Amino acid sequence: MGIKIHGIPHSGATLRVLAAAQEKELDFELVPVDLKSGAHKQQPFIYLNPFGQIPAFEDGDVKLFESRAITKYIAYTYESNGTSLVHNDGKQMADIGVWMEVEAHQFDPAASKLSWELVYKSFFGMEINNVVVEENEAKLAKVLDVYEARLANSKYLGGDSFTLADLHHLPGLHYLSGTKVKHLFDERPLVSAWCKDILARPAWEKVVALQKQA
Amino acid sequence: MGIKIHGIPHSGATLRVLAAAQEKELDFELVPVDLKSGAHKQQPFIYLNPFGQIPAFEDGDVKLFESRAITKYIAYTYESNGTSLVHNDGKQMADIGVWMEVEAHQFDPAASKLSWELVYKSFFGMEINNVVVEENEAKLAKVLDVYEARLANSKYLGGDSFTLADLHHLPGLHYLSGTKVKHLFDERPLVSAWCKDILARPAWEKVVALQKQA
Repeated sequence: MGIKIHGIPHSGATLRVLAAAQEKELDFELVPVDLKSGAHKQQPFIYLNPFGQIPAFEDGDVKLFESRAITKYIAYTYESNGTSLVHNDGKQMADIGVWMEVEAHQFDPAASKLSWELVYKSFFGMEINNVVVEENEAKLAKVLDVYEARLANSKYLGGDSFTLADLHHLPGLHYLSGTKVKHLFDERPLVSAWCKDILARPAWEKVVALQKQA
Repeated sequence: MGIKIHGIPHSGATLRVLAAAQEKELDFELVPVDLKSGAHKQQPFIYLNPFGQIPAFEDGDVKLFESRAITKYIAYTYESNGTSLVHNDGKQMADIGVWMEVEAHQFDPAASKLSWELVYKSFFGMEINNVVVEENEAKLAKVLDVYEARLANSKYLGGDSFTLADLHHLPGLHYLSGTKVKHLFDERPLVSAWCKDILARPAWEKVVALQKQA
């Protein structure tokens, strides 16, 4: 059966799952989904994800969707493989939990809108909406101010080691580091060092190599 | 020290945490935050949540924010109290994880916008934006179609028992059941039965009683 990740390496959510799989040194097959023909909105894909969004995930009879649910499954199921991405201690895990929610509800809404405007729209030759860019640049700046303060107290967002709380940010950081809002990260010394550190992880470099091949 | 929930019972995110605390039969103090005077944007509150949003949570030296991180902490730390809200089995927990992410990324964006337009704006005497209402009513209808199919296969979203995957929906269901979009739930028999079931839980009735007193 083996592990199958259904998605494409140009999707941020797929990249998030690939990052977890690489950190855990898993053997997996990346099954491409033909978005152009709308394969994600039809059977058999919607059997895996009824919302018709990539990625979807299979590990034998375990079938999952939602990237952050998949990374958690990988982190707990393959706890003894590769990098430890979660903690067994309740208090430490609660901290990781807080910063995973921060990524999902504070960082990602602004980062996704900026990636859409500055990366995808540019790729597809669509017109950039500068009002949306400015609005979300301001939102992201405020989020990163909180991150700068947090990183003065712990090396990583969830504590002293790299965990899912950091990993979930990788696709957003990767895309935005190639855009004009890169200065938001560069201006904040601790945020800047954290970005450089986690973007240089060998597992992430393997994910980027996969993206370049695609 | 004891458990302190900082927030107000007219905030959906605070209600989510109160629901978990009541299901677990915890002894807690609800510490009101004076939003009118902007107390949530100042010290000492922003020491608890640097994003300046309610709720925040204290359990001795454990200090947390983000409602869904708090409910998870409560579910795991007080595993042997009251209702079991999570599972130890990896596959079952992965399913709960998927449907918690679905609540956060599919249900809540539409439900929150509808609650803002149809509940809060009406309360504050503000003008309702009907374009936003229609757009999010259509989005919520699609989400509930997926829920109707899911609930044909399992009694609750995360499996055969009530878990955090259901509990996280309670504030949204509570608010929207008093609005004109209630028909979206009523039209779908399994969704309608699920709503009635979980809104009638004694723990949730205690939360609603707290809200009425406020």
